[in-house]
Amino acid sequence: MRTIDWIDGAVELVDQTVLPDELVLLRIGTVDGLVDAVRRLAVRGAPALGVAGALGTALAVRDEPDPLAAAARLRAARPTAVNLARGVDEALACLDGGFEAVLGRALRIRDDDIAACLAMGRRGADLVRELTGRDRPRVMTVCNTGGLAAVEYGTALGVVRTLHERGQLARALALETRPLLQGTRLTAWELERMGAPYRLVADSAGPFLLARGHADAVLIGADRIAADGDTANKIGSYALALGARRAGVPFVVVAPESTVDPATPTGAAIEIEERCGEEVLGVRGVRLAPEGARALNPAFDVTPHDLITAIVTERRVIRPERGERP
Amino acid sequence: MRTIDWIDGAVELVDQTVLPDELVLLRIGTVDGLVDAVRRLAVRGAPALGVAGALGTALAVRDEPDPLAAAARLRAARPTAVNLARGVDEALACLDGGFEAVLGRALRIRDDDIAACLAMGRRGADLVRELTGRDRPRVMTVCNTGGLAAVEYGTALGVVRTLHERGQLARALALETRPLLQGTRLTAWELERMGAPYRLVADSAGPFLLARGHADAVLIGADRIAADGDTANKIGSYALALGARRAGVPFVVVAPESTVDPATPTGAAIEIEERCGEEVLGVRGVRLAPEGARALNPAFDVTPHDLITAIVTERRVIRPERGERP
Repeated sequence: MRTIDWIDGAVELVDQTVLPDELVLLRIGTVDGLVDAVRRLAVRGAPALGVAGALGTALAVRDEPDPLAAAARLRAARPTAVNLARGVDEALACLDGGFEAVLGRALRIRDDDIAACLAMGRRGADLVRELTGRDRPRVMTVCNTGGLAAVEYGTALGVVRTLHERGQLARALALETRPLLQGTRLTAWELERMGAPYRLVADSAGPFLLARGHADAVLIGADRIAADGDTANKIGSYALALGARRAGVPFVVVAPESTVDPATPTGAAIEIEERCGEEVLGVRGVRLAPEGARALNPAFDVTPHDLITAIVTERRVIRPERGERP
Repeated sequence: MRTIDWIDGAVELVDQTVLPDELVLLRIGTVDGLVDAVRRLAVRGAPALGVAGALGTALAVRDEPDPLAAAARLRAARPTAVNLARGVDEALACLDGGFEAVLGRALRIRDDDIAACLAMGRRGADLVRELTGRDRPRVMTVCNTGGLAAVEYGTALGVVRTLHERGQLARALALETRPLLQGTRLTAWELERMGAPYRLVADSAGPFLLARGHADAVLIGADRIAADGDTANKIGSYALALGARRAGVPFVVVAPESTVDPATPTGAAIEIEERCGEEVLGVRGVRLAPEGARALNPAFDVTPHDLITAIVTERRVIRPERGERP
């Protein structure tokens, strides 16, 4: 199953807001429909957002009176993941060839993502076994970085899947990932489907479970990797990096080359998306906080490169803590 | 308002499972009723559990055919907070004087808790201003350590309240505290009632917000402080301690002397309560995870003493990171 694809002249994508209760495919034929889907996280995950940006640009070129303005709206729908902007930019670079050329570029981005995830899965699985010295490592992860975050297979969770398919996964610990519970709703759903051994844990338990030896490695995805290796990813990643360092456990980022942004010098320059406080004040529409309560809701954080053992891409392994730069 | 008290021959306590939606007083006249209330967290918080243990022992001595067995059931209702066991033990030490003596001891524990919280509030507020060098510090806290966790006023949140009452609180950041959301439900309710400036944040955002300079100090309570200063407290405390250390922000434990347990040599010897995984798989009875999902649910963690800037009690300030022992 592909999370996002181009089918009969429109974008089709799995609506990630209703999982795990329902598996619904949305068919989206307009740029503004896609902008809405991106904003409300019906489609999410850095690699999938890259494909959404490219396919949406094809919609813009085909249908919109002002394709550049429409593409710009899509490009700005979410700020932190570089892949969305890059998908738009790469598709727009083919504008001179018209709709067919733009769509062709978008479909290549889709196919490249599928191939990249398979390559990251293999390289990441080998690396985790090497770094941990274990034939069957136990790993911890946050958010959803599986097939639902890409077109197929995924990044960090793709490594988990590769380990599992090889019979080399002892257990995965998946953080629930408040406020939107991508771990509980999406990662658990994927792990159930693949039949992998796993447990969910509250986000705040991650660092302590590392201290008590419950995982041999931490695997995360990335929304943007700065030129110095600082990595923006789902809120909670930084806390895991601190816990991994104190516990002496490898902390590994798994992301395609398209997530590396040479134009962003360090993590301090990455814009962190501040989402609506209501996400924190309740759960799936049920209000939990007292009247009058307000929340701060940064959706991402930045892990400094000195806390990152390795970055795995489809082409290479980078070791930021040793001073290597992406 | 007192969170727990002895009224007309029975224990009365605020039912903390239904806040902030409803403020309900439970009247409990049997040891087994109190054991149930303790287990389902109708009464919670280390100091309040100490008073519950002592008052429940009075019930046992008055009504139970085997008071020692009943007191032992209450003593074992939750394992991590030392105060519960200590409250039972101190009340039982007056057993030779009969019910009146046991109840008298329990009421003294209640009164001592009220006085201790006021003293901790003053000492803690002074210390936070001194450690941060700020007249009006911004503080971060986790779980609920306010009046609801004690008889009145509270420990770490009592310091926040003292700062606020003095006009010295710039802002509090309260972690929501998954899975049972004591921050969202209880701490926010208390901060609303006192009119203090605050925001709720997802637990995983705490360390990152410290890295970005959003708080000048972290204040937590404690369920048990080992002889070397290692401190067990609500899950998530350890992640904040790691974040505070990296950010160079003071990390302060506020707890009565009764929380210090000389019989526990280090944090490694503290039993960590493992609660039902269902707490993580849903929110207030609403299931969020897919069918088949299971969870690990440690309710507490241990912060090593080298990460603790200070422990504030009603009598003194201890500096564990400097090698001082409680």
